[in-house]
Amino acid sequence: MSNKLIYLDNNATTRVDDRVYEAMLPYFKEEYANPSSMYQFATTASRALKDAREQVREFFNAKSEKEIIFTSCGSESANTAIRGVLGMNKNKKHIITSKVEHPCVLNLYQTLEKQGYKVDYIGVNSVGELDLEQLSEAINDDTALVSIMYANNETGVINPIAKISDIIKSKNPNTKFFVDAVQVAGKIPIDVQECGVDLMGVSGHKFHAPKGVGALYVNSKTIITPLIIGGHQERGKRAGTENVPYIVGLGKACDVARDFMKYEATEVKRLRDKLENGILKNVYNARLNTGLANRVPNTTNIGFEYIEGELILLHLSDLGICASSGSACTSGSLEPSHVLRAMNVPFTAIHGSIRFSLSKYTTESEIDYVNSVLPGIIEKIRNISPYQEELAELKRRKSL
Amino acid sequence: MSNKLIYLDNNATTRVDDRVYEAMLPYFKEEYANPSSMYQFATTASRALKDAREQVREFFNAKSEKEIIFTSCGSESANTAIRGVLGMNKNKKHIITSKVEHPCVLNLYQTLEKQGYKVDYIGVNSVGELDLEQLSEAINDDTALVSIMYANNETGVINPIAKISDIIKSKNPNTKFFVDAVQVAGKIPIDVQECGVDLMGVSGHKFHAPKGVGALYVNSKTIITPLIIGGHQERGKRAGTENVPYIVGLGKACDVARDFMKYEATEVKRLRDKLENGILKNVYNARLNTGLANRVPNTTNIGFEYIEGELILLHLSDLGICASSGSACTSGSLEPSHVLRAMNVPFTAIHGSIRFSLSKYTTESEIDYVNSVLPGIIEKIRNISPYQEELAELKRRKSL
Repeated sequence: MSNKLIYLDNNATTRVDDRVYEAMLPYFKEEYANPSSMYQFATTASRALKDAREQVREFFNAKSEKEIIFTSCGSESANTAIRGVLGMNKNKKHIITSKVEHPCVLNLYQTLEKQGYKVDYIGVNSVGELDLEQLSEAINDDTALVSIMYANNETGVINPIAKISDIIKSKNPNTKFFVDAVQVAGKIPIDVQECGVDLMGVSGHKFHAPKGVGALYVNSKTIITPLIIGGHQERGKRAGTENVPYIVGLGKACDVARDFMKYEATEVKRLRDKLENGILKNVYNARLNTGLANRVPNTTNIGFEYIEGELILLHLSDLGICASSGSACTSGSLEPSHVLRAMNVPFTAIHGSIRFSLSKYTTESEIDYVNSVLPGIIEKIRNISPYQEELAELKRRKSL
Repeated sequence: MSNKLIYLDNNATTRVDDRVYEAMLPYFKEEYANPSSMYQFATTASRALKDAREQVREFFNAKSEKEIIFTSCGSESANTAIRGVLGMNKNKKHIITSKVEHPCVLNLYQTLEKQGYKVDYIGVNSVGELDLEQLSEAINDDTALVSIMYANNETGVINPIAKISDIIKSKNPNTKFFVDAVQVAGKIPIDVQECGVDLMGVSGHKFHAPKGVGALYVNSKTIITPLIIGGHQERGKRAGTENVPYIVGLGKACDVARDFMKYEATEVKRLRDKLENGILKNVYNARLNTGLANRVPNTTNIGFEYIEGELILLHLSDLGICASSGSACTSGSLEPSHVLRAMNVPFTAIHGSIRFSLSKYTTESEIDYVNSVLPGIIEKIRNISPYQEELAELKRRKSL
């Protein structure tokens, strides 16, 4: 077993960036004032909050820093957005989302269905692209909210947010549009004005801020009820003493992400492609589940036909390589991925599908190492597969 | 202006403890795994969560670690508890609380009243003690929840929680009892079993863990709906990737608090008493608003009659001394404290009331310094008071 850690699960969580870390530290033991306090000691903390809000505003390209709400995570951002919009439009009972949203959001919709909401789940095609026609047809006068993820956490497939916004607003200008942008933050540039979204949520720990902080953009024309009711913080939209260190960290992570955006688009993408091409070339039962769909630069989702994903992950883990078969939130579950099922990935590949998600910390030698060990791992597992005939046929076809 | 910081606003927030700080640091850049992940790299993070949960269980003296939910703050703990209980008992529409709860909790009740709930607000006597008879009479078959704070944030007055629990359960055993323990955590020992409470919330940053983490005890007989709906985390009671560093910090803060409990009861109390006695002795228009009520050892609330509290705070701030006129959540508001109003503190003292809240970091020389400068500050402000005759009368009576 290797002592080296090769972390290719950055869609689950990320390492905190050095600059983010350094920015946070003074707020634990030195500048620890409650930013709502009136004395001079609190001015550093309250100014830090203000600066971070401006950094996050710029990250979203929001018009005003008043449109930024700090939250404790992506789930809180989504709950605040979705239930906040519904709370202000209690007579409208129709919601539209997609079949491939994060399980957390889907769980929330199941709860809302029990509370009398009608939820339409829009499908995707075989490479994970949203059915825009189905979406357009689903919108009606009663539609309070459309909630679509910016990019899928398992496949990395990017939805055409600006186009979706146009469709929504042309069908019903009063329908609010929430975008769960957790999986694009730090990977591709975000521009809420260009996209025409009403609400957009991100989670710090997916782009090198710590776990336990998120942000929600709510445009000035959108009024929401608060999820956590209490104090005046976040302009009454989110009660609770502000988590100054993490909010400072989130602001810094936004700045750092902008600095690395080109690196993501070029180097991270190059390494992802190298990994992907290496696997597809050297493993005859490997299948790129997303085909040619537009994806974030760090993610690849590969199906290894006729073998079990959990076994692959176990072998990788033994070598210090971290990858995943779905969202961390559902790990341990034996259910096949709802995302791949929605894409109609063949049953022969669905159980053996692995997500590799890179970051700016991923190195060429790490990718080379994974490419050097993975074929052997797959071969070992193939040898104990009960599908020997099917594998032989696959191999024959690939070698033609 | 002094460069020294004398922080006597520990009921607003606290400095992070060194041991808490050190315990958190490895989880940002080294052990950054998502604890829900299945690979070996995640075992340290998931074990850290488990250990912290056990530390917090012990802090509450809960029966099982399954009764502990990690949250992002005290407000989230309170919202989860209150709305979680009501969510499971939708046919019951009666709630009882006190007039002196934290403004955050009172805001939540105002929202619930708009949603059709009937809320009874129990009063307190002139030293801030809850009217237990009124409480007992208010409980009926429709009472879903009684929610009483353990100690008041402005005065430090401790409510007799075990006695209140007995009253509730003897009147209606199905009524759930939530205790907002934010202001006692780390100051006096907590024992949820001895107290007979169903739910109890604490906030890390009030006892030397960072801002942005809290815990909620929910006993095994109490079922609640989640506030943040989504992933499986916290046994389905609170979605969102766990904030591992802060949760580790909260666990450590619980351990540290236990080590310092005796110090709180003796040394912190001694310094608080020294400050209080010094002021009462040397300032003729000072009044101890809580009289002889049972209080947490770190807090004193003193009314300076016929002068303005904000002015006192300003002068203190100029000398680097941090104190407060109420909760940080309401600072900047010109409304007199709802707590002191409920206590019928005379209008002559209510606007000039100051809360000093000490911590284990408070030193004797800091208290001596405050005692040496405060009389001069008060005198300066008294000299510009429009109530010169009343002040002269006060002085005459005090010197008798």
